[in-house]
Amino acid sequence: MANIQTVARNCRKIMCIGRNYADHVKELNNQRPKQPFFFLKPPSSILLPNAGPVLRPRGVTMHYEVELGLVMGKTLRDLDPEDTQGALDAIEGYILAIDMTARNVQDEAKKKGLPWSIAKGFDTFMPVSNMIAKSQIPDPQNAHIWLSVNGEMKQSDNTELMLFRIPRQLSDISRVMTLEKGDIVLTGTPKGVGPVTTGDVMKAGLKVDGKDVQEANMEVA
Amino acid sequence: MANIQTVARNCRKIMCIGRNYADHVKELNNQRPKQPFFFLKPPSSILLPNAGPVLRPRGVTMHYEVELGLVMGKTLRDLDPEDTQGALDAIEGYILAIDMTARNVQDEAKKKGLPWSIAKGFDTFMPVSNMIAKSQIPDPQNAHIWLSVNGEMKQSDNTELMLFRIPRQLSDISRVMTLEKGDIVLTGTPKGVGPVTTGDVMKAGLKVDGKDVQEANMEVA
Ligand SMILES: [Mg+2]
Ligand SMILES: [Mg+2]
Ligand SMILES: [Mg+2]
Repeated sequence: MANIQTVARNCRKIMCIGRNYADHVKELNNQRPKQPFFFLKPPSSILLPNAGPVLRPRGVTMHYEVELGLVMGKTLRDLDPEDTQGALDAIEGYILAIDMTARNVQDEAKKKGLPWSIAKGFDTFMPVSNMIAKSQIPDPQNAHIWLSVNGEMKQSDNTELMLFRIPRQLSDISRVMTLEKGDIVLTGTPKGVGPVTTGDVMKAGLKVDGKDVQEANMEVA
Repeated sequence: MANIQTVARNCRKIMCIGRNYADHVKELNNQRPKQPFFFLKPPSSILLPNAGPVLRPRGVTMHYEVELGLVMGKTLRDLDPEDTQGALDAIEGYILAIDMTARNVQDEAKKKGLPWSIAKGFDTFMPVSNMIAKSQIPDPQNAHIWLSVNGEMKQSDNTELMLFRIPRQLSDISRVMTLEKGDIVLTGTPKGVGPVTTGDVMKAGLKVDGKDVQEANMEVA
């Protein structure tokens, strides 16, 4: 398994699903989607572990969204949504990631029908953990992800709450665009998103069967 | 200068500007933007010269948009919009490209305030020419780009008609996200966009001082 530095250096595409946990859909007053939708983040937005703080652009209301990330291990095209084994086999490993979002920029883009790329794509807007071996997450739909700000728990939910599960996500993406080795897929965020600003400390982690997975531990100022 | 195959293989980000020619803004009934806006296409959408046809996904109304593309030669961050020389120095070479767009998918996304990534990101949705040396386009704001469908001229305009010029584009992008060597920037499409379907033949090209630049010649079924 490649380390996260190598993954970040070679990554050519980051696809993220929107509105994939019911309670998060409600908190943003969004419609529950009938089918998954996706957006791209640029590889230049990746913030490696211990590489410094998230940088808030001037005038931006910055929100955290903790998400389970999949690092693809092979080329995937036209995956059958029922092919759970095919989906799992195509994954090289996992990461925990924070899909930082310029919420005011995104709200403006939504209102005007404009793309989300800027709102999601600033430098440092994707802090990532170290790589997590597949053996450490036997079932990616049964992992507990959490995020705290300045010691206060903000997000804490199980990946079993995803509206569209991982095989369906990989199927929908790979029917549009080929997933390549090294691509990253962010699988959506549970409820509890909110603003952070310069100096706030975000911690995030992932538990399996109640036990912390060390590689997932993140701390970002 | 790298060849287009190498550029495509190493490319990590493709940023495209929207609504950058006044007459194209009008034809889509859009608002003329007060500032440029951008969206990402995935590197997996690149279609190399002579690599086969553009593939129309089922149910998709597919539009062509011919555009001058910049291939970045170095890292660029926070470029001053007045720094024309800095902008030109950061460009390694040019390409001609067709920003294929699933127009009905995009219209739906706009209406719902959803991202454009799918509408712009299908495999084969970015046919490219060979690399064009900088010496062949002495002034990128004075090049004539054109596209025909089945022998009928559809788009034919000069890059001097861009609403936001190249230094401003690179400034705005690089203030949000670092431009890296090998990234591609598409600079917008002139008026005349329209639908193509399976079997239609698109030709495109670029003229400088009335003369064809051979490397820009494209033919895509
Ligand atoms: Mg977008
Ligand atoms: Mg997200
Ligand atoms: Mg375009």
